[in-house]
Parts: sequence; C-alpha cells; structure tokens
Amino acid sequence: MVTLNDIAARLGISKSTVSKGLSNASDVSEELRQKIIETAAEMGYSGRRTQKRLCILVENMGYKEPNQFGHDLILGFTQMAKPEGWTVDVVPLDKERQKDMTYSDFMAQGGYQGAFLLGFSLVDPWMEEFRTARIPTVLYDNYIKENPFMASVGCDSWGGMEEAVRHLYELGHRRIGVLFGPLDSYVLKERYDAFLSAMEKCGLEVNEELVGVGYFVAESTRKYLPKLIEKGATAILCSDDSRAVAAYTECVDRRVRIPRDVSIIGFDDLPITAYMNPALTTVRQDRLALGKCGYYALQCLLGGMDIHSIVLRAPLVVRGSTGPAAARPEKSAEEASHGSGT
Amino acid sequence: MVTLNDIAARLGISKSTVSKGLSNASDVSEELRQKIIETAAEMGYSGRRTQKRLCILVENMGYKEPNQFGHDLILGFTQMAKPEGWTVDVVPLDKERQKDMTYSDFMAQGGYQGAFLLGFSLVDPWMEEFRTARIPTVLYDNYIKENPFMASVGCDSWGGMEEAVRHLYELGHRRIGVLFGPLDSYVLKERYDAFLSAMEKCGLEVNEELVGVGYFVAESTRKYLPKLIEKGATAILCSDDSRAVAAYTECVDRRVRIPRDVSIIGFDDLPITAYMNPALTTVRQDRLALGKCGYYALQCLLGGMDIHSIVLRAPLVVRGSTGPAAARPEKSAEEASHGSGT
Repeated sequence: MVTLNDIAARLGISKSTVSKGLSNASDVSEELRQKIIETAAEMGYSGRRTQKRLCILVENMGYKEPNQFGHDLILGFTQMAKPEGWTVDVVPLDKERQKDMTYSDFMAQGGYQGAFLLGFSLVDPWMEEFRTARIPTVLYDNYIKENPFMASVGCDSWGGMEEAVRHLYELGHRRIGVLFGPLDSYVLKERYDAFLSAMEKCGLEVNEELVGVGYFVAESTRKYLPKLIEKGATAILCSDDSRAVAAYTECVDRRVRIPRDVSIIGFDDLPITAYMNPALTTVRQDRLALGKCGYYALQCLLGGMDIHSIVLRAPLVVRGSTGPAAARPEKSAEEASHGSGT
Repeated sequence: MVTLNDIAARLGISKSTVSKGLSNASDVSEELRQKIIETAAEMGYSGRRTQKRLCILVENMGYKEPNQFGHDLILGFTQMAKPEGWTVDVVPLDKERQKDMTYSDFMAQGGYQGAFLLGFSLVDPWMEEFRTARIPTVLYDNYIKENPFMASVGCDSWGGMEEAVRHLYELGHRRIGVLFGPLDSYVLKERYDAFLSAMEKCGLEVNEELVGVGYFVAESTRKYLPKLIEKGATAILCSDDSRAVAAYTECVDRRVRIPRDVSIIGFDDLPITAYMNPALTTVRQDRLALGKCGYYALQCLLGGMDIHSIVLRAPLVVRGSTGPAAARPEKSAEEASHGSGT
C-alpha cells in the first residue's frame, strides 16, 4: 500500500507537507497542493481520508467515568456519529502537546475530517491557529468569532444564572457570594458576566468581598469559603459542581449548616449532585444533548452550512441545598446593609 | 370513524375542549384530560395525531416565489421533514385570525405536533400565549425566553452588522445612516442594537438625524432617504434588502449615484440583489440552511431535548454598491464634523 512517506520521497518533500497538501491546509501553495494530489493519485494512494474519521480532543476535564463532566458529552457525540459510519477517536491533550505540533498537522496526520473540542481555554497554544485553520471544528463552551470553519455549542449561561439568582432572591437572600474558577476560560467569563447581569436584574449589588476566584478547586475553596461566610454571605453560587462539592466539605469542617446557615448552588448537574447531603440545587447542563448537538453542528460545517452556534437551555434544578436566608451574625450587620437594595 | 364531535357529544363538552384534552393543553384540568383520553380510547378514536403532521405558520412575508424571503426557509424545512415521513402544511396567518382562536386550539384542530413560525412580531396576539403553550414550536428570528417548549433559529446579527459597519469604516465612511423597519420586531430591534454596537466598536457616533425608521418600505424610504442624503450620510445601511431596493429607486429618481455619491448595504441577500445595478453589497442570511436548522430544532424539542437556539453566521457579501466615501456638499460640512471620531 502506498503511504504518505512514499509520496514524500517521490516529491522530495516532507511527509507532513504531503499530509497538509492532501488535507487542504492553507499553508501549502496551490501549485504544490495540486502536485501532491496528482502524484498521490498517480501512485494509487487511497489514503486515510477515504475513511470517515473524526476526533474529540479533551483538555482540562475528566471523561472516563460516568460521573465525570466529559463522559456524556463524548457519549452523546459518538451515539450520533457511529451509526452514520464515523470512526471517532477520543484524544486527551495538554498545552505541551499543542506546542509540539500545529493543529492542522495533528488533524492531517490523524486523517481527521473534523473535530469536537472540549475544555480548551483562551490561553491554549492552538487558540491563535483556530482563527485561521480551515478545518471543520466545533468547540464546546468556546467561540472563535472570526473563523467560519468553527462553530460553538454550549448552554445558555444567562438564563441559568438568572434563574439561580432569582431563586435565591425569592428566598430572601441579599448577600450572595460566588466561588468561581479562573475567568480566562471563555465559558467561566461568560458565566460570571451572566451572574453580574442577573444580580443587576434583581436589584442586588455585587460585593467584591463576596467574590472568590481561583484555579485550584480545593485550595481556592478553602481560602475563600470562610471569608465569604465571615463577610456575611447567606448564599454562595459556585461556577461548577466540583466547587460546590468542595464547599460542602469546608462547611462540614466548620460546622456551617447547609442550607440553614448558607445556601449553596452549583452549576452542571453532575450525577453525584442528586446524592449529596443535602442534594445540591444546581443549574443543569444536559451533556448528552450537548454532545449530540456538537455532532450536528460538525455535520453542518462538513456540509458547508455556515453554522455559528447551538445553545441549549440551562434550567435550575432546585434540591435541598437552598433555603430561606438566615439572619447573619452581628459582626457583618453593617456590611449586610450594603447589598440589600431591591 | 369516530370524530372529535362524537367524543364531545358523549362527554357533553365542546369539541374544542376534547381537542385540547387530547393535545395536552395546559388549560384543561388533569382530571378532565384523563376522562377525555379514556373516552377517546374506549370509543376507538384514532385521531389525526397518529399522523405525523407539522405546520409552518407565515406572517408578514412572501414565500410563494423563489425570490421572496420565506421561500427558501420553507424549502429547507420541508426538504428535511418530508423524507422523515412528516406532512407539512404551510399556513399564512394574520392578526385577525389569531384573535379568532387560540394557538393551542389551532394546533389541536389541525392535528399538528409542532410548528415552525415565520415573521411573527412582538405585538402579535398569540405572543402572550407563547409564554405558556406546551406545544413544540420553533420561531424564526424571535425568542420566547420563559418557555422551554419554544426554540429559536436565526442569524448572527451582531457579526453581520459588525462586518458591514467595519467595511464602510474601512472605505472612509464616517457619516453612516440607516433605513430601518419597525423596531417592535424582535429581529429588527436586535439588528438595530447590533448596528449601535458595531458603530461604537468602530469609534463612530450615531447621529439621530441619520436614522430613518418606518413600517411601509416605499413610503418610509421616500420620506427618509432624501433627508439622510441632505444631512450628509455617505453610506446607508438598510435593515433588509427590500429597503435597499426602494433606496435604489429613490436614488435613481434623484440622480444620486451608487456608490459614488452614497454607498448602500442591504441585509438578507435575496436572489435579486446579485442582479441589481450595481449589484448590492448585503449581509447574507442563508435561508435554506435556516429552514433546515428550524427542522432540526423542532426535532430536538419533539425528542425532549432542551434546545434554546441555533444561530447561523451572517457574512457580508461585498458587491458593487459600496465604495470609498464621497466628499459631501458644503451645507453638511459642519454636521459632517460630528461623526468623524475614530
């Protein structure tokens, strides 16, 4: 069987250039591309591209266990893709690997026609290339404005956050704190903006003292949770369920009762949240549906349809971790008056 | 064959109540609904609901000719729906008909499982019912926030408007006017907000004198176009291609040359725009793709997937109606200095 190496040898160019030429990469001249294609045809190269291959690239999230965030995203995608004859590779990725090779090379070498990207952050090395890469790509919870080869799937953070804050407001909470992951992620930034907008809609002021942002879940929760409680937060919104789980641990350690002393709301609705004690009130992301929509969006791109985004609703699931606002200890009475506007 | 009337007579209730009960409408009590369903089953009623029926309701837009806006929206939807065994009825609608009966009754009587709604405005009589109706419904260019049975499809006005304004900015235009349809339509309001945001991003001020908003295309164009030109607009953005066509007519009447005296940009990319003289620069809405996405969104709702919206990109198609900004006549020189910030 003729390989990329055979074509490369015949033309006296590198294997990766052959691969780029065959995958229509933009950094190969049109003339060279034609030459590569003609040589490949002449030598009887059938290529991997005759196979239907897609990949799911995963970074910054677990996916192997059913209780991990990425699991159902991948399941939803593959449930749709496999019956239609696609081979789907799931490839874990990190920043180092992105520095070693370009996105276009990675895709060309794997023979992938398109990709579904999970967990990429705005500071990833490939982000710059995503602005111009001519490879049909769907990003979960991320968005590349300039590039028509890229589409986005995600949940409606604005609706979800508004429901969450309104729920707390109706329970009498006025001092609402947040525990958030780093805001250099597109989705966490959006979710935080949605929180600010929801607070404004409820006539509540955001108190800087009640905002705890940090990268490492356990560490930043340990640092900020006691501070938020001390400063009089009667409710804490977490940017994700993992932070809510960590908040529970801290609350148990400090004998802070949920929801009597403090109400907690998560975001994601991971399977575990229904079995926590008390069960966690959280904003639902239907990850199976998101995975399916990811596949649909990729099919649109592969079919030349100029899709921009698919958004699912993010409804609040009310369980036991939210209750009426508790009266706060004396020391925060003065501060408590700040955030009580209606 | 047993009919709705037979069931109504047996139960001593109206036909429309039977219909509501069978279609799960929210204004029939659970007890009555059960009774209706049991009676229907007992009498051997098979019902229209055993057929797969959808409808496309059209208001405020032409759709019968290929050059009309609604044509490809409907084509895209039916191209997807028919191979999957759906019967699709296209029903033109007006406000009077909406006053005569409720949306739920209309859907129940037609035996429709879901609907794709085109051209509805925020002041439509059914809008209020859309907040609570439990019928899978996809709206083109409209959005009902509160109701999980409703999803939305449309184009990215923000991206489209930004490209259009930036294009004019790069051609040296600083006094950009608009001819817009009424802002009580969800999409025109969004498109206008997108225009404001795009102007701000380019460092341009919006001059009230250069804004012409009106319902009737020919009438409002005749009224505002001369005013905008007189006030020194070197470019005019239209909210839709029909307005751009009307603007051409006015320009010919007044010997205003396009693009030498004024640049014109439309929105929609109707088939006719490529054959205008000069061919119209416009923002593209891929209506065939929008119709397909409408069908996909409706399938999501029917399958219980909590979809919120599908958005397509709206790229600018540059043709002959835009060119470098012309020097304006003396009388507007003073005003011209207002909008020239960078």
